[in-house]
Amino acid sequence: MVRFFRITALLSLLFAILPPARAQQNIGFRAGDVQSPQVNPDGSVTFRLYAPKAHRVSVLGDWEQGGGEMVEGEGGVWSFTTSPLPSELYTYRFSVDGLVGLDPANSFTKRDVGTVFSIFYVGGGYGDIYQVQDVPHGQVTQRWYRSAATGQDRRLSVYLPAAYDGKKKFPVLYLLHGSGGDETAWIELGNVPRIMDNLIAQGKCVPMIVVMPNGNIGAQAAPGETVDNLAFRPVMSNQIPSSYKNGTYEASFGDIVGFIDANYKTFRDRDHRAVAGLSMGGFHSLYISINHPDKFSYVGLFSAGLGTFFQSDSEVYQRQDEKLVALQKRGCKLFWIAIGRDDFLYAANRDFRAELDRLGFRYTYVESTRGHLWCNWRQYLVQFVPQLFR
Amino acid sequence: MVRFFRITALLSLLFAILPPARAQQNIGFRAGDVQSPQVNPDGSVTFRLYAPKAHRVSVLGDWEQGGGEMVEGEGGVWSFTTSPLPSELYTYRFSVDGLVGLDPANSFTKRDVGTVFSIFYVGGGYGDIYQVQDVPHGQVTQRWYRSAATGQDRRLSVYLPAAYDGKKKFPVLYLLHGSGGDETAWIELGNVPRIMDNLIAQGKCVPMIVVMPNGNIGAQAAPGETVDNLAFRPVMSNQIPSSYKNGTYEASFGDIVGFIDANYKTFRDRDHRAVAGLSMGGFHSLYISINHPDKFSYVGLFSAGLGTFFQSDSEVYQRQDEKLVALQKRGCKLFWIAIGRDDFLYAANRDFRAELDRLGFRYTYVESTRGHLWCNWRQYLVQFVPQLFR
Repeated sequence: MVRFFRITALLSLLFAILPPARAQQNIGFRAGDVQSPQVNPDGSVTFRLYAPKAHRVSVLGDWEQGGGEMVEGEGGVWSFTTSPLPSELYTYRFSVDGLVGLDPANSFTKRDVGTVFSIFYVGGGYGDIYQVQDVPHGQVTQRWYRSAATGQDRRLSVYLPAAYDGKKKFPVLYLLHGSGGDETAWIELGNVPRIMDNLIAQGKCVPMIVVMPNGNIGAQAAPGETVDNLAFRPVMSNQIPSSYKNGTYEASFGDIVGFIDANYKTFRDRDHRAVAGLSMGGFHSLYISINHPDKFSYVGLFSAGLGTFFQSDSEVYQRQDEKLVALQKRGCKLFWIAIGRDDFLYAANRDFRAELDRLGFRYTYVESTRGHLWCNWRQYLVQFVPQLFR
Repeated sequence: MVRFFRITALLSLLFAILPPARAQQNIGFRAGDVQSPQVNPDGSVTFRLYAPKAHRVSVLGDWEQGGGEMVEGEGGVWSFTTSPLPSELYTYRFSVDGLVGLDPANSFTKRDVGTVFSIFYVGGGYGDIYQVQDVPHGQVTQRWYRSAATGQDRRLSVYLPAAYDGKKKFPVLYLLHGSGGDETAWIELGNVPRIMDNLIAQGKCVPMIVVMPNGNIGAQAAPGETVDNLAFRPVMSNQIPSSYKNGTYEASFGDIVGFIDANYKTFRDRDHRAVAGLSMGGFHSLYISINHPDKFSYVGLFSAGLGTFFQSDSEVYQRQDEKLVALQKRGCKLFWIAIGRDDFLYAANRDFRAELDRLGFRYTYVESTRGHLWCNWRQYLVQFVPQLFR
């Protein structure tokens, strides 16, 4: 064994001295010892970047103040500190002389449509619910179902709660992404597995299955997961060719429900099914729920793209008032509408609520701060799921 | 409906004119119209970057020639074209005046240990096997098993072939990552789901389950997936505290096999189980196979970290010759060793083969070009799995 120990020592040394430029051996060391981002005890965050040749460096962030100019300090390290931020998951990038990119000191990223961002959490509130806690963890699967409507296999994501054992039955939340999103959006940007693990462990919501399908009926799956591979770049949904929001997805949603019921232990009645979505997914949730009054008695519209997304005069989008009245008659245990005051869809949602009021349709309305943002959608989910299946 | 159509038109316009700076509404448009990377018909690749203020720009890539200096052309767009590259998946980054980052025109990335890279494929060979083809797709799950040895839940990834229906039984390949990797490495960098989907569809390998555990016994899961959240940054495994390669993982591997057999339809004999791994995972595969001769009759060592990783005098690492002889006696259908000529572990593998030769232990040896790289590990997998369970 002596021989082996000597080689170990030698290789440890080799690992230690290999410079980052030895990427061809794919060792992938992180360069330098700059700490960024640094979340301070008061919730403010300090960003740092080593860029001795740069002339102007700034942070672009998705918090309310939106970042700021960095100042060059000793040794070519630029820095910027935010004011204290509310507890959340935040995304940011650096702009160096106009070139925008990730924080090289931060290995954690998330893709939002076509852009990759660096991320961090500020704890003490919602940010804790989005992070891993020492609780039982559910499982997450990406798989394919047969869509009779499109004649194709399509990809979806499924969260199963930790208690899922293949024997006991569970209710199902169908959770829909927005324009530019796909079946991975609620997992990646929505942090659904952590939110569900934590809320279930805290007894704040009942254990449930969460199904996250792909709502771009013109694409089989997320960019990079279709036969077009990297040629299908992440874009807003209206740039995906064919069958763009023409009613097919909403009309054929039974394909998905049928697949889930056939492959998982589920309660198969409407009182154990919810459908909710953000932006375009809120639009979808409205038309799925009113066109399938036999399937869902819980509905959630998060910053819903109401009045925004029609592309055809499909029957799916006709007789809306009549269908709403029928849904209410059938029994709608929760019809939950949430939107931010600064959202560009605020007026469309106000108009829709006026329509519901005129019809005497019962709904719950929540108005938050800020705009059309993932921080709102995660928070809406945390508020919505405790109300389901009680 | 007229009202709605008018709003649609208005919003389409709004989407079209929103500048990228409106990140706070998270629209995430990709900036500019620079095409990069562009894979040319001859397999050469052209990179472009809009950086009018830069003084020096280069491409750092993991192909054999390793990138090169970009040249500034019209309108501040820098470019560089490689020589024709062999069909593969490649990773790269740009260096702009010493600052290294992603290609802003490319939304597709992969993380290797602590570094995020832009990626592209060159087709016509291995690169086709790594991409999505129009074949039945299996499912991929991330879930947690109870590790009796550590008293913790630990995370693993499971690939189920498209034919998996919960009734028919399948053989199982346990596929192990290297130092710095985790239970997502073979999915992300190894492209296992596509490789398996494609080889199975082509009839080149038998349908099988592939289990990818986390081999860092001192960490429950990948960085970002543990209770340390973003405080546990991706690092080489020897920087993960406690229980670093002390034999626990290899000795307790039965926990994982037992979990898989309890939760999936598997054949439960050694002739239907394989264990293989890259680098540290090759080291693990050796000690798992010789310490569990009852469990595996197929073994694969890909650029194995032989003689590199001991940290204790655990019984797991003792009596190696004796255990090898016992494994051979028990019946080892395939003991497959592969390494690249430029690998820094070449000598250690040569020494190990000399030991096997001395013992009269039968093995298959494959020597490839290049070094300690994912291109080799993906190619080894493509060569290895067709030999299993025949």
